[in-house]
Amino acid sequence: MSLFLIIDILGTIAFAVSGALTAMNKKLDIFGIFIIAIVTALGGGTLRDVLIDAPVAWMRDLTFVYVIIGATIVAVVFKKKLNYIRKSLFLFDTIGIALYTIVGVEKGIAADFPPLICIALGTMSACFGGVIRDILCSEIPIIFRKEIYATACIMGGLSYFLLLKTPLSSDVIVILSGSVVITIRLFAVVFKWSLPSIYKE
Amino acid sequence: MSLFLIIDILGTIAFAVSGALTAMNKKLDIFGIFIIAIVTALGGGTLRDVLIDAPVAWMRDLTFVYVIIGATIVAVVFKKKLNYIRKSLFLFDTIGIALYTIVGVEKGIAADFPPLICIALGTMSACFGGVIRDILCSEIPIIFRKEIYATACIMGGLSYFLLLKTPLSSDVIVILSGSVVITIRLFAVVFKWSLPSIYKE
Amino acid sequence: MSLFLIIDILGTIAFAVSGALTAMNKKLDIFGIFIIAIVTALGGGTLRDVLIDAPVAWMRDLTFVYVIIGATIVAVVFKKKLNYIRKSLFLFDTIGIALYTIVGVEKGIAADFPPLICIALGTMSACFGGVIRDILCSEIPIIFRKEIYATACIMGGLSYFLLLKTPLSSDVIVILSGSVVITIRLFAVVFKWSLPSIYKE
Repeated sequence: MSLFLIIDILGTIAFAVSGALTAMNKKLDIFGIFIIAIVTALGGGTLRDVLIDAPVAWMRDLTFVYVIIGATIVAVVFKKKLNYIRKSLFLFDTIGIALYTIVGVEKGIAADFPPLICIALGTMSACFGGVIRDILCSEIPIIFRKEIYATACIMGGLSYFLLLKTPLSSDVIVILSGSVVITIRLFAVVFKWSLPSIYKE
Repeated sequence: MSLFLIIDILGTIAFAVSGALTAMNKKLDIFGIFIIAIVTALGGGTLRDVLIDAPVAWMRDLTFVYVIIGATIVAVVFKKKLNYIRKSLFLFDTIGIALYTIVGVEKGIAADFPPLICIALGTMSACFGGVIRDILCSEIPIIFRKEIYATACIMGGLSYFLLLKTPLSSDVIVILSGSVVITIRLFAVVFKWSLPSIYKE
Repeated sequence: MSLFLIIDILGTIAFAVSGALTAMNKKLDIFGIFIIAIVTALGGGTLRDVLIDAPVAWMRDLTFVYVIIGATIVAVVFKKKLNYIRKSLFLFDTIGIALYTIVGVEKGIAADFPPLICIALGTMSACFGGVIRDILCSEIPIIFRKEIYATACIMGGLSYFLLLKTPLSSDVIVILSGSVVITIRLFAVVFKWSLPSIYKE
């Protein structure tokens, strides 16, 4: 199993668990919990694929569906113990958005979209599962309100295109631009960064 | 007119009326009522068709659009009397989700998706019109919170695949797996079944 | 630059600013404001293109994305002064929905959909950006609740098809049916028209 696939699976687990946790906070039933977990993990990529008219990958290859089902069962069974691994989850999630961003950017490049749209597709892949999760739970999406989250993805996508102009190999570009996402996200949380408010009086 | 088409139309009427009732509870205007009725009746199938990249059927054949418009007008005009036919509506709705489930499963099989995805497509066809209805009305979707509803569809889809392994004819398989949906849904309501809660202390 | 393109850009600016204003009312951060502005301006057309399986135009031609980004920056910087141009914005918005309606109707005709669906596609192009905006802001969409807005689009689409039966040239048809949208919308606001209520006791 390649390193990327492992990271992708860890990211998917983190997204599924975050969806399951949100759903349990809203006291949804077990069916609702599964749907929210699936949507959180797969929603961003699905929206991307529908917009670029690509086949929706998880409908043909069930690996990720099984991973999500497994992660959700674990989250439900051990819901009281999830606090102990909150930090690991956050780490997976951060690695997950980095990877999803790069996957989205590369899908956009492969389909020959302009760079700005590729960055948008990367950000969408990483962030819109969470947006759909929040809409289904009747909340204003959290990424519209606080935290440097989408911004980290945008910066990562931007780095990808800047690095493309260098002689670096594509593997190195992936790792570097993924690291940009991870670094910004980690710094943002550690130092409680948020976007400059435009509402000051 | 075939029996299936009649059932399909009765199911669509039930979905449209349920949408119109929800919209009237929210005091939406007449345009909003129509949109919610249409979305409730056609949303699940539309999402399914977009995901599997099939043409959206109701956009070419207007039968169902006319049925929905007619049902909505009747619902608005007779809104105070709808209580008297609540039980008939419930029955139509139950038959409707059974039929929509089977249609979704069969569309998935025709497009060669794996069984798990076909069951998901069937459940989506039956249930996601209601999900979109609730989102548009700014509610957490009811099927995530209570009632054996989606579960009945999942069981029906599962039966379909189990029965495929028998020598039964396809008509019999459709009727039997549709009956599974209807039976579970009826029993659930009569005996007030719900999914086991995971929130007990 | 053709007159139509200019009108289209003015309409897009009005939609983007209306999205940005809604987002600022909800105290979203700068990322959320951009997303809501983009979704308000492009959401209706995107939904239309996904439903008719056409390529999503703004993903290939970035003109409108740049216009929206520019309009949003201006809206954020001058947010306290936007009140002074509220009337101009309303006028742009009205011209915008007229134009979006016609574009949607014509896309539907080009793809050979029945007239009723073409009118729905036109109305969707004009109105559903606002619907998605309101859903993302966790509100029941405003066009379901009050104002003659969608109705103006429906009437404009209807006029288009009635005028197609006359010997008028296509330019004249566009201008006349667009004027129907604008006139109904203006009259509705000036005379405080709303759809007849169905909730009177």
